Amino acid sequence: MTSNSVYEACKSALSISDTSKLSLQEAVDRQEQLLECTVSSNADSINSFFLIFASALVFFMQAGFAMLCAGCVQKKNIQNTMLKNLLDVCGAALGFYTVGYAFAYGGSYGESTGSNKTFIGTSNFFLAGVDDVMFWVFQFAFSASCATIVAGTLAERCQMTAYVMYSIVLTGFVYPVVVHSIWSPQGFLSAHASSPLWGSGFVDFAGSTVVHFTGGFTALIAAYMLGPRRGRFYDDRGKLLITPNPMPGHSSALQVLGVFILWFGWYGFNVGSAVSITGPGQPYVMSLAAVNTTLSPASACLSAIIVNYFLAERKTGEGEFSLKASINGCLSGLVAITGPCAVVEPWAAIIIGLLAGPIYLLSSEALVRFRIDDAVDAIPVHMFNGIFGSIAVAFLASPSRLELVYGHSDHAGLFYSGDGTLLAAQVCGLLFVLAWVAALMTPFFLLLNKLGWFRTDAITEITGLDQSYHGAANLDADDHSLGPKPISPFQRTIAGPNVRVSVLDNSNSDHGSRFNVRTSTLDDSGPPADGA
Amino acid sequence: MTSNSVYEACKSALSISDTSKLSLQEAVDRQEQLLECTVSSNADSINSFFLIFASALVFFMQAGFAMLCAGCVQKKNIQNTMLKNLLDVCGAALGFYTVGYAFAYGGSYGESTGSNKTFIGTSNFFLAGVDDVMFWVFQFAFSASCATIVAGTLAERCQMTAYVMYSIVLTGFVYPVVVHSIWSPQGFLSAHASSPLWGSGFVDFAGSTVVHFTGGFTALIAAYMLGPRRGRFYDDRGKLLITPNPMPGHSSALQVLGVFILWFGWYGFNVGSAVSITGPGQPYVMSLAAVNTTLSPASACLSAIIVNYFLAERKTGEGEFSLKASINGCLSGLVAITGPCAVVEPWAAIIIGLLAGPIYLLSSEALVRFRIDDAVDAIPVHMFNGIFGSIAVAFLASPSRLELVYGHSDHAGLFYSGDGTLLAAQVCGLLFVLAWVAALMTPFFLLLNKLGWFRTDAITEITGLDQSYHGAANLDADDHSLGPKPISPFQRTIAGPNVRVSVLDNSNSDHGSRFNVRTSTLDDSGPPADGA
Amino acid sequence: MTSNSVYEACKSALSISDTSKLSLQEAVDRQEQLLECTVSSNADSINSFFLIFASALVFFMQAGFAMLCAGCVQKKNIQNTMLKNLLDVCGAALGFYTVGYAFAYGGSYGESTGSNKTFIGTSNFFLAGVDDVMFWVFQFAFSASCATIVAGTLAERCQMTAYVMYSIVLTGFVYPVVVHSIWSPQGFLSAHASSPLWGSGFVDFAGSTVVHFTGGFTALIAAYMLGPRRGRFYDDRGKLLITPNPMPGHSSALQVLGVFILWFGWYGFNVGSAVSITGPGQPYVMSLAAVNTTLSPASACLSAIIVNYFLAERKTGEGEFSLKASINGCLSGLVAITGPCAVVEPWAAIIIGLLAGPIYLLSSEALVRFRIDDAVDAIPVHMFNGIFGSIAVAFLASPSRLELVYGHSDHAGLFYSGDGTLLAAQVCGLLFVLAWVAALMTPFFLLLNKLGWFRTDAITEITGLDQSYHGAANLDADDHSLGPKPISPFQRTIAGPNVRVSVLDNSNSDHGSRFNVRTSTLDDSGPPADGA
Repeated sequence: MTSNSVYEACKSALSISDTSKLSLQEAVDRQEQLLECTVSSNADSINSFFLIFASALVFFMQAGFAMLCAGCVQKKNIQNTMLKNLLDVCGAALGFYTVGYAFAYGGSYGESTGSNKTFIGTSNFFLAGVDDVMFWVFQFAFSASCATIVAGTLAERCQMTAYVMYSIVLTGFVYPVVVHSIWSPQGFLSAHASSPLWGSGFVDFAGSTVVHFTGGFTALIAAYMLGPRRGRFYDDRGKLLITPNPMPGHSSALQVLGVFILWFGWYGFNVGSAVSITGPGQPYVMSLAAVNTTLSPASACLSAIIVNYFLAERKTGEGEFSLKASINGCLSGLVAITGPCAVVEPWAAIIIGLLAGPIYLLSSEALVRFRIDDAVDAIPVHMFNGIFGSIAVAFLASPSRLELVYGHSDHAGLFYSGDGTLLAAQVCGLLFVLAWVAALMTPFFLLLNKLGWFRTDAITEITGLDQSYHGAANLDADDHSLGPKPISPFQRTIAGPNVRVSVLDNSNSDHGSRFNVRTSTLDDSGPPADGA
Repeated sequence: MTSNSVYEACKSALSISDTSKLSLQEAVDRQEQLLECTVSSNADSINSFFLIFASALVFFMQAGFAMLCAGCVQKKNIQNTMLKNLLDVCGAALGFYTVGYAFAYGGSYGESTGSNKTFIGTSNFFLAGVDDVMFWVFQFAFSASCATIVAGTLAERCQMTAYVMYSIVLTGFVYPVVVHSIWSPQGFLSAHASSPLWGSGFVDFAGSTVVHFTGGFTALIAAYMLGPRRGRFYDDRGKLLITPNPMPGHSSALQVLGVFILWFGWYGFNVGSAVSITGPGQPYVMSLAAVNTTLSPASACLSAIIVNYFLAERKTGEGEFSLKASINGCLSGLVAITGPCAVVEPWAAIIIGLLAGPIYLLSSEALVRFRIDDAVDAIPVHMFNGIFGSIAVAFLASPSRLELVYGHSDHAGLFYSGDGTLLAAQVCGLLFVLAWVAALMTPFFLLLNKLGWFRTDAITEITGLDQSYHGAANLDADDHSLGPKPISPFQRTIAGPNVRVSVLDNSNSDHGSRFNVRTSTLDDSGPPADGA
Repeated sequence: MTSNSVYEACKSALSISDTSKLSLQEAVDRQEQLLECTVSSNADSINSFFLIFASALVFFMQAGFAMLCAGCVQKKNIQNTMLKNLLDVCGAALGFYTVGYAFAYGGSYGESTGSNKTFIGTSNFFLAGVDDVMFWVFQFAFSASCATIVAGTLAERCQMTAYVMYSIVLTGFVYPVVVHSIWSPQGFLSAHASSPLWGSGFVDFAGSTVVHFTGGFTALIAAYMLGPRRGRFYDDRGKLLITPNPMPGHSSALQVLGVFILWFGWYGFNVGSAVSITGPGQPYVMSLAAVNTTLSPASACLSAIIVNYFLAERKTGEGEFSLKASINGCLSGLVAITGPCAVVEPWAAIIIGLLAGPIYLLSSEALVRFRIDDAVDAIPVHMFNGIFGSIAVAFLASPSRLELVYGHSDHAGLFYSGDGTLLAAQVCGLLFVLAWVAALMTPFFLLLNKLGWFRTDAITEITGLDQSYHGAANLDADDHSLGPKPISPFQRTIAGPNVRVSVLDNSNSDHGSRFNVRTSTLDDSGPPADGA
């Protein structure tokens, strides 16, 4: 409405009312103040606007993850999966508001920070004393992404309680410490620090490691402990299947919708990581990030589908254009370029993408070989390509781009400099995150398992989680004409063991939870009631 | 391309060509003009950009409403529901272009407005004389949201004609008057007025009342008159069911997609309501709105699911994580924070969210008890939480935030001031909207009913609206193997009453349209032709 | 974080450190430089931000196209359709990075361009030497849209290889030359040129012709050569059906989701075409584009559904609210306003919309009459309304709006000026694109056809492309209980001709590929093996 309000406001803030009374020298001085004030005020507006734009896009990635998961699971588990996706955003919002942000950035942007390094932030709990709260919105959306990565992997067999507890622990504590170490100016690995580790710091522009490796590695730990879905690698009697059951999802349209939403959101994720765009050179940082966020997934999608075609041809005599390979290839390219997006040239983004595709294929294959069941292939996409992205920085980071982003470029990528310092820093950072996440999440999931809170029981898994947990006999169930109406946990409790239980007995196999500590009262409850 | 064009353009606009000829005093004066010009020009660009960003997001909420509705209805009515969602956007665009904007904001931003208050705008029809047309785009998107709220409630039983007519009346007249009263500087309730009502005015930053209560209350009136869907509360013979039939929708994935799209769009809705972001303090307004738009729905989602879990446990002995509760809880939190988002602190947003969840659950339960059938629970979400949001302002509005947004803070929330003036203003505003909407929409819907244009006939409802209105035998119908192919209205007309009619006869029950004035030729047409 | 960094950066760039030592004259001069620097720096940031906003929205249109296609195809072909949608984005990214951008804009924004006109750009391959790479992202998203338009038309019967090759040729060469001619300042048709054709140039603000006509006309050529889907116009024995089989898609919810996503993205497409928004008048250009992008589709949707209602009533005695008509009407209005959006007044946008609806209906009808099968009606929407939009400019372009956008307005629309120059230029441009696309794409598709790479074989088409190409027995196939499991191409090769082949034999009809050059070993392979 009143667009020169900036000018008027600065004038009144500087008590400049009647310029006619001023001497020339005073007039010039006042004008300088006025210029500084208006420029600064406009820049604040632009930066806040930029952050809400980026935050909204990153937030919208939740819809992408949800659609990807919805497409990848079986119909009988959709509601459960959708609910988990919704709940972890909500959990992340509260967790990151109360303590997460404080652990991650507490005290980072105050007056008295200086250059001392800290392991964890200790102020700004509940956003107290934070002026620039838009940055919180952006960071919250990142934390929610990190939490959601795990949702897909554990789909179709994880209890709701376990999922909620895990989300809180991850977004409230584990992830914030990683963020603090790598992105806060006080972090001991931070490339933004005034004296970064070995003069370079750990370079992770938008979070290949911070977000994707953290989330993906957590997914790996969880998936290992949780065990594969029933029927994925073993048959009803616990015998290893010759060919694992692919357990395909129910909708490729939703999967592709998910990918496009994620890619769309990734423009906010990567470009938004410039955070403040009014500094000199920032337009170049943003533009490069956007170009690379386009080229890497495109290359990765194509390399994944082509490599997969020839692998399939060698194996079965017949090539196959795999939608799954192309989707996950695309996402792998996005994950791999997340860290390097603002510090590598476009040609390097293509190379990163071309490698990300096969890295996905190989690691996905390896997981199957180790019989770790990942319902949406989040581990190969986020963990392995998260690692790859951070290592790629060490080879391909361009000195001029590092200078623009971090203000120092003594240690560029090996390709440019022949200097291994950055590689050392990257490996060091990865090992830190690996150790930190393993040290916290392993005992956490072990405990969940011990308490019997982690994995659903056999009959719930077979009939579908929607049925048991959400009373969803009708919704989404138009193809469930399975004959007898499945029983609910409540009915089961009062009705005693059901005849179908014998089929599901897996006491002499390892295809349930890997540590066999889960309460499986039903499976072990003696002979079936009606004598089958 | 030519990014210093602003500077050059201002120079040429001010005819500053050769600065060397100027005296020092002249140079300083010119520079001041130049500064003012460039600052103002950049601010115009930023604000227009901000408004198209926000408008696009708010527009996209239509996709969210559509997916939510699509997921909540039965397959046999999807096309009909989708068409209504599409048509009301189109109707809103034309209605708001021709007259709606003029009624809402006509004359508000001209030269000679002054401080006189008006009930309705009377100029700028067809956008004539409006410079800043981007603001129209933003306001159009709001009006379309208001119209769409009703679509879900009436789904599965409302005639297309009725729906289109209602949309036009609402967006063309009823809603614009509400907007004028509350948001136009000339509005008698406006907190933006130069001398607002009781020194405070009605505080509704982004529209808990203006958009959501207006839409939700219209939905209530319409749902009451239209009557419940067949089979919802009564059986075929008109006997009250012991437990109402939940009539669940067909896709929870689409429902959750809808929620995420809506939440995403709400960042445009709430943050965008800052409208002009280059003023001093505006970055703080935007940021706070964004934070609160995150915290309130997160809290509401969690409180709704937890409260619902325990309610279910008390009722059935078995807790249930309800996706429906979490979805509608989340939306309730968004609606409730819409009005207060820029005037309450983050902790208050959490409190508002925590209460919004149970308010949804209770009002949803109450509607069922009164046998008002709302296919998507839009009334509890938009109407009851719209009211709640506006009342919450009266308690929790912070003086410093009010000052920043409205430039006056004499009457802050009760919590801060102990002063009930704002509460009085809020109640007054709510009563005005209540009276205005009731006074116009009640006779309107009564008339529609009288003319027989409101509710579809029995057989159309049973076979599905897609079948009858859209000739959609095949589309979306993969689970419709109902045996005999349903008949179309045209076939029915020429074929005479069908045997299935007897089953649907509800002449001695009240479960059809509540006022029994709808033309039900079929139901009352004597004995069936083929003697069943 | 440090929002006055612009000011400080400019100070240090201009080596202004200690102002106290400067004379007054020097101080004034320095301040002028400082003002210029800060204004220019802020403008760069704003413009880069604006372009990533617009690019992200245009990119997201890919999700819209994908959902529209997914909703329009049969379940047996979803995976294949989704994969094509994903692959053409990836192909466009690489094609437009390597050569496409260079052909389109190479050398356009360097120092030494001058006013000479060129047919094609010849520098900036691989983005070498391009500073402002964000513009590339925006242009890439446009090229991907152009490619995707064809995906829907060819769905359900086109080979993957053909599709990929076509995408590369279109985005790498055919489309860039069109862009160069019309949008590059060096283009011989460009209205942005320093001396445009006949003083007006070809006016196509956001690409009714450049993107939509180019894509739509390519779709027409391809659809003509590819022939209709089996069963669309002819029965199994090659006899013409009395009524063409509509072959409806499987999900209207996804179709409407697609439309809303596309409309949302179109705000980026049309408004984003302002490219640089900090110039004077640019806020007006953006605002008008946004308003028109709202009004035209709304009018077109309503006119399409109403006209279709009465056409259906005249034909069958019963009116029908067609979702298909409303969806495609809406998209037609968007395509038609794409070219004129910044140069016509809002009332003209409504007229354009009102005509776009019937133009869709008529051209769709005409295609059916000529038995050209378009699975998603992309040809009527994009080609016919692309032409219409560019012709509409010639009648309705307002002089003041042309001045604002192009800096010249000697030849406004016929309605304003009575001057046919612009009409001549528009027709000339359309003929050029027609000739160029026909000259390149016709031999290309002929060659594909000759090589047998274009159309899938009969059995693949009948069983569904997902089955044969993607090994997708389970995914999306919940309604495929067709009895015997369909055979894969590999199985077919080793098993010999199958008994079902006789049913599909179409050797004496023209309803396969129109030129009968495709390798149809199966159809022509003598008597079926098992004597049916």
